[in-house]
Amino acid sequence: MNANHICFIVAMQVEAQPIIDHFSLVEDHSFAPHLPMRAWVGGYNNMIISMVVNGKNEETMMDLIGTQAATLSTHLAIGKYKPDLIINAGTAGAFSEKGAEIGDIYLSGKHIVYHDRRVPIERWERQCIGYYPVWDVSRLAHLGFKTGIVTTGNSLDMPPVDEEMIKTTGGEIKDMEAAAVAWVAQLHGVPVFCVKAVTDLVDSGVATPDQFKANLHLATQNLKEACFRILEALLKN
Amino acid sequence: MNANHICFIVAMQVEAQPIIDHFSLVEDHSFAPHLPMRAWVGGYNNMIISMVVNGKNEETMMDLIGTQAATLSTHLAIGKYKPDLIINAGTAGAFSEKGAEIGDIYLSGKHIVYHDRRVPIERWERQCIGYYPVWDVSRLAHLGFKTGIVTTGNSLDMPPVDEEMIKTTGGEIKDMEAAAVAWVAQLHGVPVFCVKAVTDLVDSGVATPDQFKANLHLATQNLKEACFRILEALLKN
Repeated sequence: MNANHICFIVAMQVEAQPIIDHFSLVEDHSFAPHLPMRAWVGGYNNMIISMVVNGKNEETMMDLIGTQAATLSTHLAIGKYKPDLIINAGTAGAFSEKGAEIGDIYLSGKHIVYHDRRVPIERWERQCIGYYPVWDVSRLAHLGFKTGIVTTGNSLDMPPVDEEMIKTTGGEIKDMEAAAVAWVAQLHGVPVFCVKAVTDLVDSGVATPDQFKANLHLATQNLKEACFRILEALLKN
Repeated sequence: MNANHICFIVAMQVEAQPIIDHFSLVEDHSFAPHLPMRAWVGGYNNMIISMVVNGKNEETMMDLIGTQAATLSTHLAIGKYKPDLIINAGTAGAFSEKGAEIGDIYLSGKHIVYHDRRVPIERWERQCIGYYPVWDVSRLAHLGFKTGIVTTGNSLDMPPVDEEMIKTTGGEIKDMEAAAVAWVAQLHGVPVFCVKAVTDLVDSGVATPDQFKANLHLATQNLKEACFRILEALLKN
């Protein structure tokens, strides 16, 4: 992998900040003027690193989570930085019945799917689920992270209709942005993979918002550490 | 309304084509090179009209429906054409219990919401539903179209969890793009409203895909006629 410029796409500032701090990235104020998306850049050995964050809603000052903001962030990131590789880093839900634990790090395996785009008409059905290809993370297997199919939807909960779709596609990591990042990356021909830290076990019986809040700090620290180890591994490849 | 440049954002080619033909719009091949989105432009009296369509999936050759493609289309449209007003035109579902009939034309009233972004955490809840403002269509009241709250989601069906949200927000027109178009338009400070032709009655008991296919031609013809009447009315304003 000849990755000279690696771009992280991250939804929330609290997920991004430990990585920004760790690599001493500097904000690029010329990025996307008049839009909420923000970017930081820096160097690490012979690599250039950029970090694009969805930004916040002007009124609520809450992060712009979800696939629409991720679509725009990824498009803007590629237009500005022309990265060789995109890493969608963030927190996510996972399944204890599949062996996940709070704080686990997962890399995206096989492909990325949607669980909230149901269009049961001929070829639209498969297209809307997505099955976006990912950069082959087997090259990072020595890092010992788990690997799973990332499944994306715009809601934090998992009602029966989403659970059914996740069972059908074999989704293992439930997030709110990855499929959108992967789609835009694919449109532009940029390879992409995900690194996700588990904040909540979707099948634990505990409400997701409570788990999310309780475990966010642990997950973001683990995420930062994982991103560092991934970059070190990419440097040696 | 001093609208010199009106931009239509449309998801499907079959929805766009009658409007393109009616106004003799010409394809702008310089629009979004290497991306699936396509654009047509033309003049109508003293107005400039552009039409941006989501485009098709390379593999399936099916239209890129849904909010992610609509996000990108709207951003690209605004960047290229800097329109004074955006009209999101398309087909949609509606509710017979609210008086809707197949082929009806609705304009967007009050605001546009999402019904598939459930994030029950403080200020995120409201932010994710959206409540995006729309251009005041009461100025078009003399045209006699119905008016309703447009509610957007990425699926064609309406499972209980979506139905519940639609009841909560009072959604009357169920589509798959409007909220994304409205969000991006709001980010860029461009006024926006929707014109939607009803292909299916969500509460009729007949499967949505069957209704959609049966009524698509009628709806797109009515949509074209409505767009013509709306432009005529805007000219006189």
